[in-house]
Amino acid sequence: MKRHILILFAFYAGLWLQAANEENIVYTNASNLQLIGKATVEGDFFHRIDTAHYQNLPLTVKQLYTYSAGLAIAFKTNSSVIKVKWRVPNKKQNANMTPIMQKGLDLYIRKDGIWQYAGVGIPQGIDSSSILAENMDESEKECLIYLPLYDEITHLEIGVSKKSYLKKMDNPFKGKIIVYGSSITQGASASRPGLAYPSQLSRSSGYQFINMGLSGNGKMELPVAKMLSQINDVDAFILDCIPNPSVDEICDRTINFIKTIRDKHTDAPIIVIQSVIREKGNFNMKICKMVKEQNRAIEDQIHILHKLGFKNLYLIKENHFLGTDHEGTVDGVHPSDLGFERMLEKIKPALAEILDIKFRK
Amino acid sequence: MKRHILILFAFYAGLWLQAANEENIVYTNASNLQLIGKATVEGDFFHRIDTAHYQNLPLTVKQLYTYSAGLAIAFKTNSSVIKVKWRVPNKKQNANMTPIMQKGLDLYIRKDGIWQYAGVGIPQGIDSSSILAENMDESEKECLIYLPLYDEITHLEIGVSKKSYLKKMDNPFKGKIIVYGSSITQGASASRPGLAYPSQLSRSSGYQFINMGLSGNGKMELPVAKMLSQINDVDAFILDCIPNPSVDEICDRTINFIKTIRDKHTDAPIIVIQSVIREKGNFNMKICKMVKEQNRAIEDQIHILHKLGFKNLYLIKENHFLGTDHEGTVDGVHPSDLGFERMLEKIKPALAEILDIKFRK
Repeated sequence: MKRHILILFAFYAGLWLQAANEENIVYTNASNLQLIGKATVEGDFFHRIDTAHYQNLPLTVKQLYTYSAGLAIAFKTNSSVIKVKWRVPNKKQNANMTPIMQKGLDLYIRKDGIWQYAGVGIPQGIDSSSILAENMDESEKECLIYLPLYDEITHLEIGVSKKSYLKKMDNPFKGKIIVYGSSITQGASASRPGLAYPSQLSRSSGYQFINMGLSGNGKMELPVAKMLSQINDVDAFILDCIPNPSVDEICDRTINFIKTIRDKHTDAPIIVIQSVIREKGNFNMKICKMVKEQNRAIEDQIHILHKLGFKNLYLIKENHFLGTDHEGTVDGVHPSDLGFERMLEKIKPALAEILDIKFRK
Repeated sequence: MKRHILILFAFYAGLWLQAANEENIVYTNASNLQLIGKATVEGDFFHRIDTAHYQNLPLTVKQLYTYSAGLAIAFKTNSSVIKVKWRVPNKKQNANMTPIMQKGLDLYIRKDGIWQYAGVGIPQGIDSSSILAENMDESEKECLIYLPLYDEITHLEIGVSKKSYLKKMDNPFKGKIIVYGSSITQGASASRPGLAYPSQLSRSSGYQFINMGLSGNGKMELPVAKMLSQINDVDAFILDCIPNPSVDEICDRTINFIKTIRDKHTDAPIIVIQSVIREKGNFNMKICKMVKEQNRAIEDQIHILHKLGFKNLYLIKENHFLGTDHEGTVDGVHPSDLGFERMLEKIKPALAEILDIKFRK
């Protein structure tokens, strides 16, 4: 019995020392590893697109594409501890999101064939360091570290135990499904980076859904359509931007936006999703009316496009995406993890059918 | 048609002007209104207990009971706009919660007999002002404004349109069910104040569940038991504190803690809830072991108490409270709204049976 306790003590003391002692940690610069969730390989490593290349994009769109929403670093390690050091600019904290989601990191590890949550990196300011996971067994693990959803990341190092290895890993996700959209697409307001819904779709299908969400700025401007159309090897486009443009903008821009993409991608399915009902509108009559009008406008535009002969163009209609109890958002607009779970339950079957893919669960 | 548009325009312009113009708003100090969710009527209006009265409480416990977790202001109004001004100290933002939840406000309105989300107050620093809801119809509405979960509130004014009224309202919830517990009880990490689980239990049952959660400090100290035992007219005690005490503390303190409450409350049900499984423990072997040991220890203690003849003492056993996909937390410890929904699905049936009450849904 005593011996048993002694062995246990030594085991835990060992684990503790190993985790605590920075001397036993070797860091690797993440920019030498596999980046996933990026539409192209161009531009700054941690930016979603090469903002310098697309001069005509609206300024805010450019800025938002420097945010690392949906990006993740993939690698393999047998280390019992995974640490991180990272840098984000000194951007103001948003009231409707956690600092972990806005500026933090989120580790997933594949276990029994399924990507599972393993730990978060707690942001401390401009420069942060954090233990993502510790006291793990020393089997080889496939790891994904999701990057901040609402900030730029300018530097990231991943630390593992000196006596272990950290290996490059191929992108575990197949293909490229572009998800252009609003703040909701970008991830507001998941509780942590890995829970933005395009990333959830990737993990549960094995296909790579690319987060091209633009907080408040998914307004279907023509230069954005041109940029999206220039992405190569796209399997499908999902347009989940309807909360952002006004009714007039929807009427003025939808046809050109979709035509621009279709001209370059003749066969790729284009899937438009109506706006989630804003819970604010449960009491605010003006908001209630606005969302209904946006959804009617996009439906009309898709109808026109179908009449014009556009094929492989789909509309997923709002159908209580966030449930019926009005509890799915943090602020009456942005889904919480609960709202996203409900939304995915509604959207996954439609996507599965259109894209002919399967989602786990 | 033109006339129709003109009328609509005038209507919305009117609503906008009304909301925007501070001159048309009359403010009422919330401390003159009905406070709900407080165990006693003593002490500072916005503190959960009279911390000056209970000298022997651990210092951190006293401090945490100055936080307004679970408290709400009830009133009636027929105003189409509800505004708020409030003050919180300059406490650091926690990484695993939204500013709205930590320092913000959360409005619910009773509609069709059900309390429904209506709007949040966005914190801006020490002093904040915010529109909770606007563009509403002018029917009389019963309102609840939930106060910050992780900060003290020192001042709150509620503003309604000059041409409307704001009336006192009786406490809409019956009785008093004390929920003593950890950070999870206090509300970490719901996305907004009204989603702390004791408040959800209140709204869905009509009974008043009192939030006595103590972030990291639900450690079952004897002075805390004495304080809880002195609360009058308690219908039941729920102890959801097991994540906080060590195994040794559980073994040393449980019997005295429960005996102290039972001595003063001879008939009230005492319901102990095992700790949620920490998702951190999915990979962290040490955490995994710790939670299992805590849950085994509390089960043993309840068994001893039953053998000693304690009646009306219940244990709700952990049964995948947060689901099985490891996605129910923000940080591997604290449930998100998704985690809380899953937890309540598991806990409500047990509470309903023991307390002989019904929960909606």
